[in-house]
Amino acid sequence: MAARKTIKTQVAIMGAGPAGLMLSHLLAKAGIESTVIEIRSRQEISETVRAGILEHGTVNMLVDSGVSDRVLREGDRHDGIELRFNGESHRIDFKDLVGESVWLYPQTDVFMDLAARRADAGGDVRYSVTDTTVRDLEGSPKVWFTDADGTEFELHADFIAGADGSRSHCRFQIPEAHRKWYFHEYPFAWFGILAEAPRSSDELIYANSDNGFALISQRTETVQRMYFQCDPNEDVNNWSEERIWDAFRSRVNGNGFELKEGPVIDKMVLKFRSFVHTPMRHGKLFLAGDAAHTVPPTGAKGLNLAIHDVKVLFQGLDSYYKSGSSALLDSYSDRALDRVWKAQQFSYWMTSMLHTPADADDFSRARQLGELNSVVSSRHGRAYLAEAYTGWPSA
Amino acid sequence: MAARKTIKTQVAIMGAGPAGLMLSHLLAKAGIESTVIEIRSRQEISETVRAGILEHGTVNMLVDSGVSDRVLREGDRHDGIELRFNGESHRIDFKDLVGESVWLYPQTDVFMDLAARRADAGGDVRYSVTDTTVRDLEGSPKVWFTDADGTEFELHADFIAGADGSRSHCRFQIPEAHRKWYFHEYPFAWFGILAEAPRSSDELIYANSDNGFALISQRTETVQRMYFQCDPNEDVNNWSEERIWDAFRSRVNGNGFELKEGPVIDKMVLKFRSFVHTPMRHGKLFLAGDAAHTVPPTGAKGLNLAIHDVKVLFQGLDSYYKSGSSALLDSYSDRALDRVWKAQQFSYWMTSMLHTPADADDFSRARQLGELNSVVSSRHGRAYLAEAYTGWPSA
Repeated sequence: MAARKTIKTQVAIMGAGPAGLMLSHLLAKAGIESTVIEIRSRQEISETVRAGILEHGTVNMLVDSGVSDRVLREGDRHDGIELRFNGESHRIDFKDLVGESVWLYPQTDVFMDLAARRADAGGDVRYSVTDTTVRDLEGSPKVWFTDADGTEFELHADFIAGADGSRSHCRFQIPEAHRKWYFHEYPFAWFGILAEAPRSSDELIYANSDNGFALISQRTETVQRMYFQCDPNEDVNNWSEERIWDAFRSRVNGNGFELKEGPVIDKMVLKFRSFVHTPMRHGKLFLAGDAAHTVPPTGAKGLNLAIHDVKVLFQGLDSYYKSGSSALLDSYSDRALDRVWKAQQFSYWMTSMLHTPADADDFSRARQLGELNSVVSSRHGRAYLAEAYTGWPSA
Repeated sequence: MAARKTIKTQVAIMGAGPAGLMLSHLLAKAGIESTVIEIRSRQEISETVRAGILEHGTVNMLVDSGVSDRVLREGDRHDGIELRFNGESHRIDFKDLVGESVWLYPQTDVFMDLAARRADAGGDVRYSVTDTTVRDLEGSPKVWFTDADGTEFELHADFIAGADGSRSHCRFQIPEAHRKWYFHEYPFAWFGILAEAPRSSDELIYANSDNGFALISQRTETVQRMYFQCDPNEDVNNWSEERIWDAFRSRVNGNGFELKEGPVIDKMVLKFRSFVHTPMRHGKLFLAGDAAHTVPPTGAKGLNLAIHDVKVLFQGLDSYYKSGSSALLDSYSDRALDRVWKAQQFSYWMTSMLHTPADADDFSRARQLGELNSVVSSRHGRAYLAEAYTGWPSA
C-alpha cells in the first residue's frame, strides 16, 4: 500500500460551492494559498439547478472582487417584490424604500462563474475526491482525501474552512461538548415547479391566502419557477398538471390577476428547516455557509448568508496573515452569527407571516392578515422588510 | 306596579368609561343628544386605579375637543422607551424616529376629566343604574334600566353605542349567527406591584431576559409601578417582598443598571388575552372599545383603541345627523377594525417578542434575541415599532 502523499497549503477549504470558491478566490487575490476539496464533480454541481436571489452586497462582491460581471449582464435586477393577500397585491419598492435592489441569478450560475474564475487563475480546486476527513482541528489541522485518480493525500494547512454544505462532514468532527445546535421544523414544505409559460409578473409575488402560500418567480422568458405551500410528506406523483394549476389559482388568482399557465416540466417537494450551529469556529476549523446554518427559502437568504460568512472569514484570515493578529479570526463566529440570527429571524418571520398552518385558528389567521396589512400600510414596515430582503449593512 | 317611564334621546350610550363619555362629549359638541347609562357609581370608577399610556392622537382628542388639558400639565410626556435584552438597554427614540410622543397619564384620570367635563356641560350621565338591557337592536332600539332611585325607565334612541367594557352586556345581545369572535390565550400573565421607591428610569423599560419579561414603569416621584411575567395562576400570597424583588433583579438588573427598591404597597396578577368581536355593528347597535376587543397590555393599546373607535363612530353619527347619509356609519366596523387588527398584531408582537414562554426551545429563544437585535439595530425596525407604539395615523 502506497504511503499517503503529504501536501501543504495555508487554508484548506472543504467544499467547492459558492462559499468555498469565493473564499479561495478572495484569499488568492490577497496572496494567500488555499486548496479546495470537493466530493462532487464540477459537472455535477453545474448541472444541479438551484434558484437564487442575490442581495446587492453579494452582487457587489462578485463584481468588485473580479469574479464576473455576468450577473449584471444576464441576471435580472429586481427593485421590489409584491406581497399579495386578501386578493390584492402590494408592492414593496426596495429602490424607493432603501435605495437597493436584488438580482435574480441562479446559484448554479454563481458557482459556474466562480469555478471558471478559479480555473482561469490556476486555483487548486480538487473535484471528485473521496474519503475526506478533517483531523487535528485543535492542533496542526490536516485533511485526508483520495483524489479522482485514487491517490491518497494528507493536506497540511494552517486553517480549515468548513464550507461543505448542509450535510457538512466538518460540522460532525466538532466534539459535542464544544457545540450547540438550534433546530426548528416547519409544518409545511414547498411544492416547486418549472413550467413552460411566459412571465406572469416582472417581480416575485409572495402570495398569502386562505389556501396557503404561493411564490411566483421567474427563470427565463419562456420557463417560470413557482412554488406553493404543501405538506412536507406530499408525493409529487399525486399531483397532475390540472391539480397543480388549481392549487396555484386558488392561492394567487383574483381581482384581475391571472397566472399564465403552461406545461409543467419539473416538479419537486422542497423540505426546509431552520438550523444553526454555534460557535462557528472550533480550534483551527471555521464553518461557513450551509455547513453552519440553514434557513427556510422564504427569505431568500441561504446563499447570501454563506457569502457574508466568507467575507467576514476572509477579513480574519487576511488580517492574520498580514499582521499576525488573530483578533478578527477570534471574533469571526460572533460577527458572522450576528447576521445569521437576523437572517434566521427574517426567514422565520417571512415564513410565518405568509404561510397558513393547517391548524391555524381564526385569531391567528386574522392576526396574520393584520400583520401583512400593518407592514404594507406603513412606510417604516415596508422599509424594515426591504432592508432585510435586500441585505443589511455588512459587519 | 308602576309603569316603566319612557324617555328619549338620539344616542343611548351604554357605559361611562372613557369611550362612552368621550362619545357623549363629542356628540354634545356637535349638538347631538345622548344619554349615558352606567352600572357603577362615579366614585367607584374614580377609585379604580388603572395605568395608562396615551398615544399622541388620544391626547390631541382630549385637548382639542376641550375635555381638559390636564394631561399636558400633569401627565408625563415620554419621547421614547427602552428595550432591554442580553443585559443591555436600547432606546427607541420616538421623537427622533417618527416625531411623536406618548403620555403617561392614568386611565382613571382620563375618566375623571371626562366625567367632570360632562357634568359641567349638564350631560345626561346616569351612574349606578341596575337591570340594564338593550332591546330591538334591529328595529327601534330601546334601553331598559332602573336608576339609582329605583325608577324603571325605557329609553328610546336612534342608535345605541355599546361601550360597556370587556364584560359587555351589549355584545351578548347580538345573535350568534350575526357575530364572529376571535380569541387568543397567552401562557403567561403579569405580576404587578406598586412600590414606594424613587424612579429607576425616566422612561418605560421593556425588559426581556432568560428569566422572563419585566416592565419598569412610573407613577409618581415616590411610587412606582412595575410588572414581571408570571404564570396566569400565580397566587400573590406566595410572593414575599424579597421574592418579588429577586424576580425583578433577575430580569432587569445588570451592566450597571440597578432597580431602586422599596416597600411593596400593592400586588396583583393581571391576566390577559386577545379578543375581537366582528362586525362591530349589529343593526342600530355599535360596539366600541373593550366591548368589542381586548388586547394584551404589552402594546399599551387598550384605551387608545377605544378612543379611536369613538372617533370613527362619532364621524359616522355626526355625518348621519348632518347629512342624512349613513355611509360613514355603514363603514364604521371596517374602519375601526382596520386599526383594531393592527393593534392586535402589535400587541401580540410585543408580547411574543418580549415574554419568554416556559417551554421555549433553544431556537425560539435565540431567534427572539435575533428579532430584538434586528429591531434595535435597524432604524426602520425602530421606526416601525415607534409608529405603532405612539399610534398610527388615524382612519
